[in-house]
Amino acid sequence: MTHDEHQLAGAYLSRVIEGPSRPLQEHLAQGRSLEELAQAVKNREEWLGPELLRQTASRWDWDRAGEDLDEAERHGFRLLSAQSKEWPEEQFTVAFGYAATGLSSRPRTYREDAVRPHALWVKGQSLRTLTQQALAVVGTRALSAYGAEATRMIVRDMIQHQWTIVSGGALGADAVAHRCAVEAGAATIAVAACGPGVNYPAAHAELFRSIAERGALVSEYPPLLRPARHRFLTRNRLVAALSQGTVVVEAAWRSGALSTLTWAQAFGRVAMAVPGPVTSVASLGCHDKIRRGDAQLVTSGADIRSLLSTLGGLDVDQQYELQFAPDEVQRLSPAELKVFDALSEHKGTETEALASEAGLPLALTVHALMTLQQRGLCRREGITWRRIRHSGAAA
Amino acid sequence: MTHDEHQLAGAYLSRVIEGPSRPLQEHLAQGRSLEELAQAVKNREEWLGPELLRQTASRWDWDRAGEDLDEAERHGFRLLSAQSKEWPEEQFTVAFGYAATGLSSRPRTYREDAVRPHALWVKGQSLRTLTQQALAVVGTRALSAYGAEATRMIVRDMIQHQWTIVSGGALGADAVAHRCAVEAGAATIAVAACGPGVNYPAAHAELFRSIAERGALVSEYPPLLRPARHRFLTRNRLVAALSQGTVVVEAAWRSGALSTLTWAQAFGRVAMAVPGPVTSVASLGCHDKIRRGDAQLVTSGADIRSLLSTLGGLDVDQQYELQFAPDEVQRLSPAELKVFDALSEHKGTETEALASEAGLPLALTVHALMTLQQRGLCRREGITWRRIRHSGAAA
Repeated sequence: MTHDEHQLAGAYLSRVIEGPSRPLQEHLAQGRSLEELAQAVKNREEWLGPELLRQTASRWDWDRAGEDLDEAERHGFRLLSAQSKEWPEEQFTVAFGYAATGLSSRPRTYREDAVRPHALWVKGQSLRTLTQQALAVVGTRALSAYGAEATRMIVRDMIQHQWTIVSGGALGADAVAHRCAVEAGAATIAVAACGPGVNYPAAHAELFRSIAERGALVSEYPPLLRPARHRFLTRNRLVAALSQGTVVVEAAWRSGALSTLTWAQAFGRVAMAVPGPVTSVASLGCHDKIRRGDAQLVTSGADIRSLLSTLGGLDVDQQYELQFAPDEVQRLSPAELKVFDALSEHKGTETEALASEAGLPLALTVHALMTLQQRGLCRREGITWRRIRHSGAAA
Repeated sequence: MTHDEHQLAGAYLSRVIEGPSRPLQEHLAQGRSLEELAQAVKNREEWLGPELLRQTASRWDWDRAGEDLDEAERHGFRLLSAQSKEWPEEQFTVAFGYAATGLSSRPRTYREDAVRPHALWVKGQSLRTLTQQALAVVGTRALSAYGAEATRMIVRDMIQHQWTIVSGGALGADAVAHRCAVEAGAATIAVAACGPGVNYPAAHAELFRSIAERGALVSEYPPLLRPARHRFLTRNRLVAALSQGTVVVEAAWRSGALSTLTWAQAFGRVAMAVPGPVTSVASLGCHDKIRRGDAQLVTSGADIRSLLSTLGGLDVDQQYELQFAPDEVQRLSPAELKVFDALSEHKGTETEALASEAGLPLALTVHALMTLQQRGLCRREGITWRRIRHSGAAA
């Protein structure tokens, strides 16, 4: 099979530099292309700087980009770079942009790795579309019966409101969240800590197949790479970056699932935790995060949506200010606002055209239109929709 | 039976002015005595002011003070006023003093009633001693099995550390908290919303008897007065005022138990709530208070004690500052500090004398001495205790 230069460069760098690379991202930010950078790495060019040369020292001559692209394709995966239409640019701009401001007080390791992936291997639907309204649902592998019940309650509620569920594909909480979405025919994203072609855990092979149908499997790692401890941590960074908020449904003291919450904080995303019985140790990690103010206590999908709406991230006073604002438009969620902006006052537009204009999945567009109609901001005219003139709306 | 003038005046005013009276407290604060005020009410003297004359308009000529004192005595109750040695002056100074600063943002009804009682009817041990280390434990009457388990877990832990459990004597959470203390031979205070001689609920007659043995039954109301809705609210004010913190163990949305928490806030006390399963509605009220920042999330007695220690009420930075302070003495709880202050460097003192000097119950004094010894701040010498010279301690 033949592959273009850009694809080959991306696959080469994905193999040679595993996971996030701050110096590589700095070159990309300065306008260098993947092709240029791949060539420079192969030539050991000095302008790359000592850190990037060090990161590529052991593998720079290991060029199997063509084979990797073929191998990935055999497993149904394609390679995305920042140039791809499906690249979740919006989410990455918000998440890594916030991390770059240094506003977050997260520890050094989080800051060092808080850079974009240079390539993503994806199987399934468009990441850009799926992540327009996405919630990360994570938790312990040793999920209790209560934890499973709480997870299902929240996931069911969120998917009814067209939210994509992002998780890590692991046993326990991740699996319950993914399965709950899949069984309801909803979209869910599993971010793997291993490369395409590896099913980890093996018991989830069938689940991963179902996820890719309406949702997506995502990995930062080259084909057939095995999972490893450090890869779980950087994987969690993508789970948090690809969603507007992260909720931990159950986690014991110092559970690994809490690292996704820390990533969410590092990205300025909404960090949330579900409380549980204090008579068991299963929710200790959640309680600790809430107590320290590192996570907001949430008890339901409604709680979560209210935090993730336009009101999310504001303090109580600001929330009230918006809540009682005379302007209906100010109360719209980001997705609703996009659909509202796509509507015309002067002519009706078909739903598909609105979804395309707003860059949102069709189901979410319909959902947003229903809300806008309820609030008197648009009306249906046969198969089209038209904006209703609104005093507070921009011209 | 004969009673002195002060007792008769207190009993008269307790009957004529039920519950808290802001104008009466203002006169007391200006140095008027109960006797003087009782006489003035009987004479309808104008200097009392229109509000106090209005409050006493319907009952001023109903003087059955002698009979009330006799009736109370038949049920084992005695009358306390601010002049009594057993009066919990310290607690009231903190609680009502804070409320008077207007620092609390609590609603008007809470502020209006946020004044001391003018008389208390008590059966059992000294209120002043019992409330030196006291935690209010309250919750729903419809306690779930989980709520009962959480309540017992917390109460058992607190009484092991010599804390008195204060509650309202009601069904559900109150009863489980009181019973748990009584069964362990520990002190507990039940504040009633009815007068001495009324067992409410009737099913608790035996429980109330046991409570009075090592703890106390308390009421602001004259003998045989029946409970009424408004009396529950003012009763809750005393539950919060008599303890250094209030924890709600289980409460549904808008449960009446939450009013004690609001009182605790009005008094600048530590307000706490125990989380529970989000899959039931039983803990909704607790979760809501935590989410709004009106209560601190606590999961154990250790959590509660750390909030109620000298560190309580400080923000995280301040807590760390104290925690890592080089000075051991700065880390002592209020009770430990009292015992430390009562110790002499130059001679040993017996435990009973220390308890008396510190104004603490004997068991709590012993407990504090053990902690001080562990921290190298005192040592045992036969049957006496001596302070160990400490660089950070005041001379």
